[in-house]
Amino acid sequence: MLSALFAPQTIAVIGASRRPGKFGNVILRNLKKGGFAGRIVPVNPHAGKIMGLPCLSSLRQATDKIDLAIIIVSQPQVLQAVHDAIAAGARALIINSTGFKEVDVKGAELEEKIAEICTLRQISLLGPNCLGLLNTQHRLNILHGAAMPKTGGISMISQSSALCAAFLERMAAGDFGIAKVVSLGNKAQLSEIDMLQALGRDEDSRLIAAYLENISSGDDFVKAAEEASNKKPVIILKSAVTAAGRRAATVHSGEIISEDTAYGAAFKRAGIIRAESFSALLDYTMAFAMQPLPAGCRVLVITNAGGPGIMAVDSLVRAALQPAYMDPARAVELEGLLPAAATVYNPLDLLADAGPDRYEAAIKAAMASSNVDALLIIMADRGNDKPRETAQAIINAAGGDKPLLVSFLGGHKKGIRRLLREGGVPAYNSSEQAVSVLAAMCGYQAWRQRPPRVVTRFPVNRRRVERIIARRLRAGRFFIAEGRAKDILQAYDFQIPEGSLTLNADEAVETARRLGYPVAMKISSPDIIHKEECSGLRLGLSNRQEVLDAYDLLLLRARQQVPEARLVGVYVEKMQEPGLEVIVGMHRDPQFGPLLMFGLGGIFMEVLKDVAFYLAPITFDEAMQMLTSTRSYQSLLSGRSQKQIDLAAIARVLQKISQLATDFPEISDLEINPLLINESSSEPVVINAGITLKSG
Amino acid sequence: MLSALFAPQTIAVIGASRRPGKFGNVILRNLKKGGFAGRIVPVNPHAGKIMGLPCLSSLRQATDKIDLAIIIVSQPQVLQAVHDAIAAGARALIINSTGFKEVDVKGAELEEKIAEICTLRQISLLGPNCLGLLNTQHRLNILHGAAMPKTGGISMISQSSALCAAFLERMAAGDFGIAKVVSLGNKAQLSEIDMLQALGRDEDSRLIAAYLENISSGDDFVKAAEEASNKKPVIILKSAVTAAGRRAATVHSGEIISEDTAYGAAFKRAGIIRAESFSALLDYTMAFAMQPLPAGCRVLVITNAGGPGIMAVDSLVRAALQPAYMDPARAVELEGLLPAAATVYNPLDLLADAGPDRYEAAIKAAMASSNVDALLIIMADRGNDKPRETAQAIINAAGGDKPLLVSFLGGHKKGIRRLLREGGVPAYNSSEQAVSVLAAMCGYQAWRQRPPRVVTRFPVNRRRVERIIARRLRAGRFFIAEGRAKDILQAYDFQIPEGSLTLNADEAVETARRLGYPVAMKISSPDIIHKEECSGLRLGLSNRQEVLDAYDLLLLRARQQVPEARLVGVYVEKMQEPGLEVIVGMHRDPQFGPLLMFGLGGIFMEVLKDVAFYLAPITFDEAMQMLTSTRSYQSLLSGRSQKQIDLAAIARVLQKISQLATDFPEISDLEINPLLINESSSEPVVINAGITLKSG
Repeated sequence: MLSALFAPQTIAVIGASRRPGKFGNVILRNLKKGGFAGRIVPVNPHAGKIMGLPCLSSLRQATDKIDLAIIIVSQPQVLQAVHDAIAAGARALIINSTGFKEVDVKGAELEEKIAEICTLRQISLLGPNCLGLLNTQHRLNILHGAAMPKTGGISMISQSSALCAAFLERMAAGDFGIAKVVSLGNKAQLSEIDMLQALGRDEDSRLIAAYLENISSGDDFVKAAEEASNKKPVIILKSAVTAAGRRAATVHSGEIISEDTAYGAAFKRAGIIRAESFSALLDYTMAFAMQPLPAGCRVLVITNAGGPGIMAVDSLVRAALQPAYMDPARAVELEGLLPAAATVYNPLDLLADAGPDRYEAAIKAAMASSNVDALLIIMADRGNDKPRETAQAIINAAGGDKPLLVSFLGGHKKGIRRLLREGGVPAYNSSEQAVSVLAAMCGYQAWRQRPPRVVTRFPVNRRRVERIIARRLRAGRFFIAEGRAKDILQAYDFQIPEGSLTLNADEAVETARRLGYPVAMKISSPDIIHKEECSGLRLGLSNRQEVLDAYDLLLLRARQQVPEARLVGVYVEKMQEPGLEVIVGMHRDPQFGPLLMFGLGGIFMEVLKDVAFYLAPITFDEAMQMLTSTRSYQSLLSGRSQKQIDLAAIARVLQKISQLATDFPEISDLEINPLLINESSSEPVVINAGITLKSG
Repeated sequence: MLSALFAPQTIAVIGASRRPGKFGNVILRNLKKGGFAGRIVPVNPHAGKIMGLPCLSSLRQATDKIDLAIIIVSQPQVLQAVHDAIAAGARALIINSTGFKEVDVKGAELEEKIAEICTLRQISLLGPNCLGLLNTQHRLNILHGAAMPKTGGISMISQSSALCAAFLERMAAGDFGIAKVVSLGNKAQLSEIDMLQALGRDEDSRLIAAYLENISSGDDFVKAAEEASNKKPVIILKSAVTAAGRRAATVHSGEIISEDTAYGAAFKRAGIIRAESFSALLDYTMAFAMQPLPAGCRVLVITNAGGPGIMAVDSLVRAALQPAYMDPARAVELEGLLPAAATVYNPLDLLADAGPDRYEAAIKAAMASSNVDALLIIMADRGNDKPRETAQAIINAAGGDKPLLVSFLGGHKKGIRRLLREGGVPAYNSSEQAVSVLAAMCGYQAWRQRPPRVVTRFPVNRRRVERIIARRLRAGRFFIAEGRAKDILQAYDFQIPEGSLTLNADEAVETARRLGYPVAMKISSPDIIHKEECSGLRLGLSNRQEVLDAYDLLLLRARQQVPEARLVGVYVEKMQEPGLEVIVGMHRDPQFGPLLMFGLGGIFMEVLKDVAFYLAPITFDEAMQMLTSTRSYQSLLSGRSQKQIDLAAIARVLQKISQLATDFPEISDLEINPLLINESSSEPVVINAGITLKSG
């Protein structure tokens, strides 16, 4: 569909210029110098010929059909140029011109109008305010400022022209080959989603690197990214623009959800390799482009310097990778080939005077050893170690099905680094860099090997929830407090403590007797969200007198502290045995939809913000992963006070929240705080809950 | 004292060689090529002349006195060479030869013997098994494998020859000048401590970089490092060699104290800038060598690319630096000099087409603005931005009293980077690198500006503690359980709950009545360290019957669960009101001495290992810093359940532990767990405590 954009036969350059340095001149030069084999039609009302190409004064004079029009004229002339291009049969447009959405409302309106025209006629539109694109296979260079790079498998999508140029420059310096590069600009029509689709399906692109500042549509992005990630690594640097005003007022957890939380969850779901910095983007790209993925996370460090080797193994452990130890048989065999003082362990120390033979022997043994998934080779300059020959030996011994990265410790001239790269071996300036690359490779491989996603559907009473929500929406009441929230959760198969709403003290006593002492009592009001903040909660009441006192005190305190609140009555509930308190919930992100949340209560949530997020719908495996990804997980398992915690039961609760959030897009936020887990009951119990509906 | 080593007039090379590539040849060549102005005496029994220098067949033939002897002969000949050198008047020796402590016990014995000989005669000894040293000012190059570098202010101490060579290579590539370099080798006599002293006092060394694998003596190291840090930055890369078997058996916290914990505390005390990786060592060295220290932590980002600018400010915040905002007056003035679309904020966006003028104007305004402490300049390649001229403008505008670092985003040729460096401006490949460098500069500056250390001494009953400890040591009983541990703490002015040891149930009831209900009861046994693990603890007993039952149950359970324990009786104590529980303690590190510890109880300690450490003796300010450096601190201050926590009272507790640990080197470990803090009492109360004495 984007063939007119990426592989046009005839290109019109509207705004071609004779003056060197002008954009309309650079583009022509790049096209010609890049070796574009099709026809180029420069358009300029004042020029006869540019670079030997005959100029049209207007595209309306064109006799042949054109495929792609590049529009470089100033903003007021763009609309006419678009019409001319369409009249000349263009199926794709690239608008480099500026002065649109990025400038003012009038610009935005014009931009929207042009996008509509193009979309209506099924014409692809890149830009405006973009640098253009590049397709090495087609010898197509219409990217401002870039020389035609070497042909290769790396493709790049960028929302920043500065980062796009910097990326290409570094790739050229490292002698990496490029497939396609797209500068997105204002994304009036084509966005990162179209490009992820196109490059994901493009066989020339073996890896996609991207720099994004925002995305156009959460759902489509996740789908396109997941599809692409299933075929090739997608490495994204997302600038973390702080979004203000994103707090969900009705839930505590609102404070810890940022825009970045949702991006994190979406990237995780879609298998995206997230680069945290520009250097990381380059580091990751280099290794993913050159090396196979590791089958597991066991890494062997091979070194000619002791201290740096130990430091590298320490970095591995900090990055949650595992130090690898060779099979004993291989180790013994290798020991026979090395000096007695060499240590066949991890780090595998080849000693200061290690030359090509030792490196080659050690790498071959590691490649053949079933206990090793990846290799980190340290080359320190020890003066007399024949670096060129050693680099060649490393290249010869690499190339198996296990990734091999080199960490360079000073010394060896640039030539060695280039030699290694040309031999397909990435070389880094420090072991820490190499280790974080290996961690990214392992993470991506684990995602690639994930089990098929099967989302369970629990039998629920959906109609009941529909009725409650419809009634609330009709009444314009968007916060659903504890009582009704529990009704909704009960309809979705959550375990709720026995209890009822009571309207006077006698009723409360009667209910308490029926439930059995001790009981808990809570003020019931649609206007009180945080009961504990207005003394609206009494626990462990163990006889008639305590219930009578509690009833009166609850109403009294609520009237004193929240005089404007409408008080419905008091909810009396069977007191639960103490247990572990966790918080689960859902926040609907405007971009990515329901974001499920899990964390331990108390300080874990409020101080440590130790909370895991995942996009709904969630599978059982994913829910279990969510639980185990928190720091709190350790305390769930190893805490002295909790002997046995049924993690699977918590995972099922998350699955049910996922189902509820998927079934009812009207729900914007849901929080169960706390969800109580105790040994005596197999199902976690909802102690308190609140639900917020979308008001818009 | 080390002048014979660093600035000799006459040097003997024992083991000089005619064969190129041999160590004994390289050293001679380096000396000659480096331009050493003194006399060189090669010693070789078989050569007449080497490189035109007349050879002695033995140093015993020497007629003139020599200052320094370099010994390169094979191990069996080293002792004779040492004697010959001493006979020839040498006041310093460098032994490059290997085959000593690094190989076997016999080698170690020989090494020790040589060290004794030298120390007895006050002769300086570097090595054995070292690469030598380098002093550019004296044109002295006796470092194996290194060409004479440019003269400058950077000095380096290294325990790894690979890292030493790599460091020098990178410094040369960056065109940095070197003062002195020392390869430590086996440290038979001279160690990193002597070198920190020497280089700390050396006026040519303006910065000390070091790579260390271990240190020779904790106290002396801290003293020497602190003295050096007071004069110049000391940047150390310490390889984290994992130490096994370092658990202190009697305290929970034993699990979280590693060798690295002690190094961390020692480095903090001594003002050492800790590099976590080799790249960090290089990054830090570059900036500290070229730029002034910032007065505070407010950093302004100036950029010609929007996205990267925002990412840089995000990195600042993550690194706990503060984004700077210019004084309004300066900002308005600067706005007048920039295009309307430029944003004078943080990041200060100069726009894509920013050239030298805008950079210069912005930097000058920031340098003059009192709200800015440091500048991070992003240079992205935007195609038409005159990089050379821009670099020159940055150099011109820099050079004030505020540090300025450049983050390079691709593009500009190597020449620009070199141009900047030659102009004294460090350039990094990413903003993240530059930000971590700025964080290190701010941290060092804060240390330099620390208030004078005044260690408070509290009035205590030292004699009482002496008696208790002496009695225990005589009896060979090294663990002091709760009862006696509380006596010791009470003598040191800690607040202890009222209570007594009781020997039968009636006595327990009588004590409970005297103290007033409710009470706590605890089994008392020298063999039970963790009472809670054998049901040895009963809380909140509120009447006679409960006390009687508790007494019998405590003895019963202890007999069932720890049959071998000697049971002394039951300790009855006044029950305390609930409050915040913290853990404080001390672990005596074999290298660095008493390591004070503070953390919140429960999961904070056991799961999160959120614990702060500091070397004793501690000042009040340092104790307060310790408290506020923990993640728990947030919960201390902002926790909903704790309204007012008297931090100063906890700090005083730490000071008293510091005093106790300093007064009694016999104490190896002390733990107060928990220390109870509640609103009603101003002084924290010791609920449980244990003390371990050194058994050796």
